Amino acid sequence: MNAGIFTKCLEFTIPAELKKAGLYPYFQKVESAQGPEVTIDGSKKIVVCSNNYLGLANHPKVIEASCEAARRYGTSGTGSRFLNGTTDLHEKVETKFAKFVGKESAILFTTGHHSNLGALSTLIGKGDFVITDKLDHASMIDGCRLSQGEIVRYRHNNMGDLERHLQRYEDKNKLIAVDGVFSMEGDIVNLPEVVKLAKKYKAGVFVDDAHSLGVLGKNGKGTGEYFNLENDIDVLMATASKSLASVGGFIASSKAIVEYIKNSARSLIFTASLPPACVGAIDMALDLIVQEPQRRAKLFENSNKMLREFKKLGFNTSNSSASPIIPITVGTDETAFKMWRRLFDEGVFASPVITPAVPAGQAIIRTSYMATHTDEHLDFMLDKFEKIGKKLGII
Amino acid sequence: MNAGIFTKCLEFTIPAELKKAGLYPYFQKVESAQGPEVTIDGSKKIVVCSNNYLGLANHPKVIEASCEAARRYGTSGTGSRFLNGTTDLHEKVETKFAKFVGKESAILFTTGHHSNLGALSTLIGKGDFVITDKLDHASMIDGCRLSQGEIVRYRHNNMGDLERHLQRYEDKNKLIAVDGVFSMEGDIVNLPEVVKLAKKYKAGVFVDDAHSLGVLGKNGKGTGEYFNLENDIDVLMATASKSLASVGGFIASSKAIVEYIKNSARSLIFTASLPPACVGAIDMALDLIVQEPQRRAKLFENSNKMLREFKKLGFNTSNSSASPIIPITVGTDETAFKMWRRLFDEGVFASPVITPAVPAGQAIIRTSYMATHTDEHLDFMLDKFEKIGKKLGII
Repeated sequence: MNAGIFTKCLEFTIPAELKKAGLYPYFQKVESAQGPEVTIDGSKKIVVCSNNYLGLANHPKVIEASCEAARRYGTSGTGSRFLNGTTDLHEKVETKFAKFVGKESAILFTTGHHSNLGALSTLIGKGDFVITDKLDHASMIDGCRLSQGEIVRYRHNNMGDLERHLQRYEDKNKLIAVDGVFSMEGDIVNLPEVVKLAKKYKAGVFVDDAHSLGVLGKNGKGTGEYFNLENDIDVLMATASKSLASVGGFIASSKAIVEYIKNSARSLIFTASLPPACVGAIDMALDLIVQEPQRRAKLFENSNKMLREFKKLGFNTSNSSASPIIPITVGTDETAFKMWRRLFDEGVFASPVITPAVPAGQAIIRTSYMATHTDEHLDFMLDKFEKIGKKLGII
Repeated sequence: MNAGIFTKCLEFTIPAELKKAGLYPYFQKVESAQGPEVTIDGSKKIVVCSNNYLGLANHPKVIEASCEAARRYGTSGTGSRFLNGTTDLHEKVETKFAKFVGKESAILFTTGHHSNLGALSTLIGKGDFVITDKLDHASMIDGCRLSQGEIVRYRHNNMGDLERHLQRYEDKNKLIAVDGVFSMEGDIVNLPEVVKLAKKYKAGVFVDDAHSLGVLGKNGKGTGEYFNLENDIDVLMATASKSLASVGGFIASSKAIVEYIKNSARSLIFTASLPPACVGAIDMALDLIVQEPQRRAKLFENSNKMLREFKKLGFNTSNSSASPIIPITVGTDETAFKMWRRLFDEGVFASPVITPAVPAGQAIIRTSYMATHTDEHLDFMLDKFEKIGKKLGII
């Protein structure tokens, strides 16, 4: 190991320093099921950093559907979707998903990250332009980087800036690619204006509904339903690792677009297919989203209460308004780490988000809610946030 | 959908044409468990295109371990490894894997594709060089493309060409990144020479053991064990979707290198963690690789028989010699599609590999073997290959 290429690893000491100071928040080892409460290092913590929005990851029916699929099909796809790794269960779930979101067709990738990689890298060809929000998810950016086209970024949810770029590339083929709900900020894309501009400038519309599917809209169909603009999203991406209680990612669109992506996407063709156990869980979760709408109602009851109470306490919750993600701006990275540590010690498991994910001095504690949080959980957390927020001078 | 960006999808008619001609081989819908025999469209097929080398994807103990993990931890990691998606089961399996391959530490990504993306994009920094075999797997190429360094390719397994590049970049930090077993060709990297050259030119050595783990070496530890050079591989990558009967990917290396990758890799930090059901399957598969060495023996008995018999029949098996992957060169892409179709109709499920994955006129039928193929399966396939090979003028 005398190769100079590894010097960067030997010199990388930040995690060790944070650990020494007791301030390293990452890779916490959960020793229990992933519910609103988990056990870490033998202690119970209330979880406020999970994407398990509807609380389906521990639903007995979802667990049983997962086991049933493993018993029937085995534990591995044993090859890529393209070659030998497709089962009738994969296709069943794709058809169910497409129908749910009102598209002609859908394809299931092994992860959500892979869906963005595969769809964006193939749709954006040489000479094409992709116009992205500066706060779009990393997997979208990486998908664009793996394409042969040009990437343009506009200021977060700033429609004037988006139009400026659309004008500039008026004569080019272009795709506007945006998050539905922004994963760290919890705010919602201005889809009505995006759609209007897309029509005006003949751009395609791609929406990443990772944090919106099962959450936004009367029936949980996502950002399109929320704005009553389902038909104006040309390509819809959604992950199965959040409301759908599994892992994986969908691309739903017209038959022609899905067929193109299926036969071109390297992240689909050169990756083993999603194991049956994971597909079985999605299959059941899609049913439960329809059968148990009370989960979505409870999720919003919880999120709305927290937003209201955080504001009342004087916390800065940025632009979060109608999603289960509420960021709390705390200040420096160090303050975020300290806040994380104190919350953790008091029994609350939250996530700090620091530079470069946020601008310097605007580090956040990202909180997110579940349908399965009880009022007791929420009150407990509010109490701890208030106490620690005051101690650290945040409120 | 009047956006010009989608024109390429509307004009993409190759799959439809192949389907019309009955020659579209991809996304076949398997209706049964993934064993040596599967059911497709109601008919039984003998599978000769799976990566289920040890046949563990249907092992009752693996299925039970998968279900047990889902029951205990739920069906989803509900977040990334980095934030809330790590369980003690993930760490248990990482420790077990690192011990198995003789490395200090390991990190488990959600797919093998993600491991290559994450490790290569972070290890290769600005000003660094990565020197790759021209036939390295797509995920390695994509990982290199997502890095900030320079990519150099040498001719397949050509050590003279490798040295030429190493000389050229003698004063640079560099990594030699190679497949252990090449996925389409079935030949093995010339690791002794790679290691010798790496030492001479102070390059790091990265080996993708996707198709070697559980397969090569006395104890199935992969390419390093096969050549008795385990300690000379600096960074080892292996997938869990082949011998390990699940999905996922490991990077095993020194503590410092793994720590660096864990805290930097976007494909780890921005992807949901591997669901417990998949981790549980890996956990058990790692035990069975140790407990049931007869599977590896049977796998090689099967592969050796097929290689010998294919050669006897006059098929061109390229450089395959000591792996369970045997490519059969058949000629044009059209011949490959026709051969696939006839084999399929006669009850053999194989994979055609066409341009640009292989040079024009050198299309192959890729065959791969399992410990669970019986002599009857193998004889049945040989019979069909002989009959169809003669009919198509390949032999």
